[in-house]
Amino acid sequence: MEKFLVAFTFVGSLIALLFALLTSKRILKFSQGNELMQKISKAIREGANAYLKRQYRVVGIFFAVMFVVLCVMALFKFITPYVPFAFVTGGFFSALSGFVGMKIATLANARTAQGASESLNKGLKVAFSAGSVMGFTVVGLGLLDISIWFFLLKYIFNLGPAEISSAMLTFGMGASSMALFARVGGGIYTKAADVGADLVGKVEAGIPEDDPRNPAVIADNVGDNVGDVAGMGADLYESYVGSILSASALGVAAFNGSINAMALPMILAAVGILCSILGTFLVKTKEGADQKSLLKALSRGTNFSAILIAIISFPLVYFILPKANWMIYFALLAGLVAGVLIGKATEYYTSETFNPTKRLAASSETGSATVIISGLSLGMLSTALPIIIVAVCILVAYFISGGAQSASLGLYGISLAAVGMLSTLGITLATDAYGPVADNAGGIAQMAGLDENVRNRTDALDSLGNTTAATGKGFAIGSAALTALALMASYIEKIQSIPGGAEKISNISLMNPTVLVGLFIGACLPFVFAALTMESVGRAAQSVVIEVRRQFKEIVGLMSGKADPEYAKCVDLCTKASLKEMVVPTIVAIVVPVIVGLTLGVTGVVGMLAGATATGFLLAIFMSNSGGAWDNAKKYIEGGVHGGKGSESHKAGVVGDTVGDPFKDTAGPAINILIKLLSMVSIVFATLIVNFSILG
Amino acid sequence: MEKFLVAFTFVGSLIALLFALLTSKRILKFSQGNELMQKISKAIREGANAYLKRQYRVVGIFFAVMFVVLCVMALFKFITPYVPFAFVTGGFFSALSGFVGMKIATLANARTAQGASESLNKGLKVAFSAGSVMGFTVVGLGLLDISIWFFLLKYIFNLGPAEISSAMLTFGMGASSMALFARVGGGIYTKAADVGADLVGKVEAGIPEDDPRNPAVIADNVGDNVGDVAGMGADLYESYVGSILSASALGVAAFNGSINAMALPMILAAVGILCSILGTFLVKTKEGADQKSLLKALSRGTNFSAILIAIISFPLVYFILPKANWMIYFALLAGLVAGVLIGKATEYYTSETFNPTKRLAASSETGSATVIISGLSLGMLSTALPIIIVAVCILVAYFISGGAQSASLGLYGISLAAVGMLSTLGITLATDAYGPVADNAGGIAQMAGLDENVRNRTDALDSLGNTTAATGKGFAIGSAALTALALMASYIEKIQSIPGGAEKISNISLMNPTVLVGLFIGACLPFVFAALTMESVGRAAQSVVIEVRRQFKEIVGLMSGKADPEYAKCVDLCTKASLKEMVVPTIVAIVVPVIVGLTLGVTGVVGMLAGATATGFLLAIFMSNSGGAWDNAKKYIEGGVHGGKGSESHKAGVVGDTVGDPFKDTAGPAINILIKLLSMVSIVFATLIVNFSILG
Repeated sequence: MEKFLVAFTFVGSLIALLFALLTSKRILKFSQGNELMQKISKAIREGANAYLKRQYRVVGIFFAVMFVVLCVMALFKFITPYVPFAFVTGGFFSALSGFVGMKIATLANARTAQGASESLNKGLKVAFSAGSVMGFTVVGLGLLDISIWFFLLKYIFNLGPAEISSAMLTFGMGASSMALFARVGGGIYTKAADVGADLVGKVEAGIPEDDPRNPAVIADNVGDNVGDVAGMGADLYESYVGSILSASALGVAAFNGSINAMALPMILAAVGILCSILGTFLVKTKEGADQKSLLKALSRGTNFSAILIAIISFPLVYFILPKANWMIYFALLAGLVAGVLIGKATEYYTSETFNPTKRLAASSETGSATVIISGLSLGMLSTALPIIIVAVCILVAYFISGGAQSASLGLYGISLAAVGMLSTLGITLATDAYGPVADNAGGIAQMAGLDENVRNRTDALDSLGNTTAATGKGFAIGSAALTALALMASYIEKIQSIPGGAEKISNISLMNPTVLVGLFIGACLPFVFAALTMESVGRAAQSVVIEVRRQFKEIVGLMSGKADPEYAKCVDLCTKASLKEMVVPTIVAIVVPVIVGLTLGVTGVVGMLAGATATGFLLAIFMSNSGGAWDNAKKYIEGGVHGGKGSESHKAGVVGDTVGDPFKDTAGPAINILIKLLSMVSIVFATLIVNFSILG
Repeated sequence: MEKFLVAFTFVGSLIALLFALLTSKRILKFSQGNELMQKISKAIREGANAYLKRQYRVVGIFFAVMFVVLCVMALFKFITPYVPFAFVTGGFFSALSGFVGMKIATLANARTAQGASESLNKGLKVAFSAGSVMGFTVVGLGLLDISIWFFLLKYIFNLGPAEISSAMLTFGMGASSMALFARVGGGIYTKAADVGADLVGKVEAGIPEDDPRNPAVIADNVGDNVGDVAGMGADLYESYVGSILSASALGVAAFNGSINAMALPMILAAVGILCSILGTFLVKTKEGADQKSLLKALSRGTNFSAILIAIISFPLVYFILPKANWMIYFALLAGLVAGVLIGKATEYYTSETFNPTKRLAASSETGSATVIISGLSLGMLSTALPIIIVAVCILVAYFISGGAQSASLGLYGISLAAVGMLSTLGITLATDAYGPVADNAGGIAQMAGLDENVRNRTDALDSLGNTTAATGKGFAIGSAALTALALMASYIEKIQSIPGGAEKISNISLMNPTVLVGLFIGACLPFVFAALTMESVGRAAQSVVIEVRRQFKEIVGLMSGKADPEYAKCVDLCTKASLKEMVVPTIVAIVVPVIVGLTLGVTGVVGMLAGATATGFLLAIFMSNSGGAWDNAKKYIEGGVHGGKGSESHKAGVVGDTVGDPFKDTAGPAINILIKLLSMVSIVFATLIVNFSILG
């Protein structure tokens, strides 16, 4: 039975990768359009490649240093010798996920534009296929990495379940570190270029978005790929792997080393892949479809996959776990439902079809200050619903799994809720990642001077992408919170397994001052982290603004279209700036938990993790939703209300959107990674800290 | 000894009130200036009075309802029969503090303008005296209320120490409720008027601040009084009383019902009053003094008081507490020092003499969006230092007081740190509250067309007020966090004293799901609360904007100065809007802890309190500092850098300042009250919740 489970996981991952491969072959058969389109697409692709190459060089140094540090720690027996290697593979696969996604997205952008010039359905098909490649590469590589390591550790090195899960959590740390670099670096790149292009191009020079006269336009399109695609790929690889690994680790604790309980999350993930693949076949639309039926086409796919997995996972849980524990199935279901509900809440607060964003758009009539105030309060208020949803999900998952009798059963339930939430990641990520491809296609259509209705079609696809992205973000944030809690529980398990650790962690009551102080510091981390990333965007954007202004001023004939701008300078500027800026936030995320551990001890670390999870969850929702709502409010105004394009209201709306950019695409998503990375780092350094902490 | 201590406290409070009375008599002797100045001052005074009257009517209904609710609870023995009465007196004295402060401020504004027209020193003297009246009224009434209740409960009703402290905490709830109404209502009023006046007057019509042609100018000046003075008075009354009461309650727990430990915080407060009075005599300046020597004049007073109290409190602690516990003195000292350091950190992040605000001003060159992004990240980043300061203060106070041996000793130490921080409140509040008086004086000087150097002098005073206000806010926020922790500890004590409570609260570990869920919900509350208050400001401001625009359009000859605007309409509009808007946030703050308690039980409440304290502390600092920095960056630009007044940079700076207004003067300070009110409400409803909660 046990070997069968491992084999099943392995096969599931191969199927996902095979599906991704076949889909990408199909994409490459489509036409790339005319020569100009090919030229633009190539420029974007080269910019993105150049960025990633340089990013990997910087990240490579970091991984090399960390590898040495971990090897030294392994020498002194603070960690097992597998840890350094697991760490590196986690990082490698996470990077690979982002790279493949980016590669296919840059190959699909001109093809999507060309497809859209033929029919809306064809445009959707190409863009969605590109999204699928990304989605299934992420889940495929994730599960592949997990099943290979599991096989190695169990059957080659003959480790026990607790040691296996502990070593495997380390490759989660590798994945999270890589994800943080990718998210932060890509996020800074994309938003610096976007803000720079918008502020000077749209606001100051008054030319439309994606106008070829704008020197930052190529950088802007490169940014969509390195930030929204490569960054997101690495990010969700990390979420996916993190949720499965933490659930496996807690399964070992809850069922006294049962391999079945440990394997269940992996099996569920493999089944999720199969259901998601089936779902993708339902995504298609008729010509002349409006926004609503496009959304329906996508929802059909995701809903089908979700329902299928809800049905199939019942017998899985029933047969894999001991019979008495079949109720744990409902924990999984609670996670799945909570993910959908958080997505709906996100949509309510950020879509222009609902009141909050409509009111936000209306506040533009009294200027940019009121747009900002309204947008910030919209985001803050929007934290309440997701918090309640997650709260109910936690309680249901905990108590229905038997937490009242055994806490570790309850915690296993919470971690399975996260796995449930992410089980359909293959397809939800496809619906999410196709957005930037459509966005890029629109840019290419504009720059290549294609017919206006092509741009309208890509706009329809892109706008829909905003909605699905909102839903995707809901999943990402919700699962991050649950996974972070599960990792916190894994941390405590880990400490208890270290000699002398159980005693040190015995009092994690809120009246223990080290816990309280840890809580304060942890709560502060997401704020500091968000500030650092936003400042980075601000600094990078300012340098782009100055460069774009310079080109407008110095290049004769630029505005009249007689001379070409120097695109490459902006691309290079963004690359350099974002690579420089991504280092500090990531280092902070890795160093602080070690410092907190060494000073406040393990109880302080638990407090820190709880504090960071709580405020991280809140800030991530707040920033994503404010940003999303500003974006859509601006689009809503552009649709003709409150004076429409070019009015004072519109200008105010653009200011809101510009502030929202680093909110929703840099700081917000990076916080999701941060809260998990903190736990992973704490787990890896656990033995060191138990032995050398000053307090607690 | 014991009776002597009570008498000493009582006498201390009377001395404070007497000093306030004498000071106000001295103020009234100054000239109010010419007829126009008197007329303007009267209009402001009448507007402020009218607002407060209507506010008290609304609040009165709330207190009547709560009184009935508490009486019913007393009937069913869920609380002692003293509670309803204590609740009402707390509210009454808090309101009275605000009222007296506002009264004297509106009587002093024209006198300050007139004083400034004679000399800078005279202007400072009148304004600072008005601030002193407010400061000493707050501490005097606070200590009076405490000593009277202590006398009644101990010597008339013969209650034991635990019952006394528990009943007295209820009047903290009354004070907090009143403070929240005053802060939120006043904060909405002042910012709606300010934003309305600025957006239309300064930005759209291009007329200077406080120009008599602006229809919202009187409302704006009224707002300074009802928000920055009356609101702040009620707020700090609550902080002061809250810190003393929670320390007293924890003293009872730490020293097994010792009246001495219970009385120590009150004695320290009384000594603080005497030291503060002495300090006020050192505040004076020479003519021709620059900003720096003005600041020195004020610092001389506060530093002197702080050092004096640091010296005197050592023998007090030594003789009042058991000899073995004399080290607790250092907890007090840690609080005093932490307060000063948080103030310095606030100053660093918000004063234009330091880099952060300078860089913020520079970001205005690329437009309002970058000003907003930079300001938000400045505020978020500025949370780190205060968190570290408070963290160290908590650890020092806890462990030096003997927390390692007995947790309740450690918690008493933390609560005494808060008392130490607020011991010089009499004089720090004076340096804080004089700002709005100077601000108002400047408005009157402008409207009455006084000589330009009068306005320059009041501007110098006002600008200094911004720095001292920043310091004052540091104290308010720091003490709020410490007091909230102390109240949380009092809550746990309270629960343990209720039959069946000890068992229910035995597991407040972070791995208990009700604690975790409570933590999430608590962490969310300050976000929701900030959103509600900012939305309120937004809504109220929008109505003012529309009204001001209407007057500019419809009143013929307004811009040429030939016709008067209808000031009263704006005053009335602000009053109505703010009273309407203040109700919901306050109700939320009172109802949520009861709902959380009834569903998640007492462990959920503890989690909620911890979560709310952590994020409340962070949000309050973030919002205050962002707001302060925007304000000062704008002023810095107005001083002539980055293009100076009227430039595009300046316009961007004004947008930042406008966003900052509700941040720093409405939402930020209100959160300080919120986090304490949550604990107070939980304490009052404790018995009900122990008996009827669903979970935990």
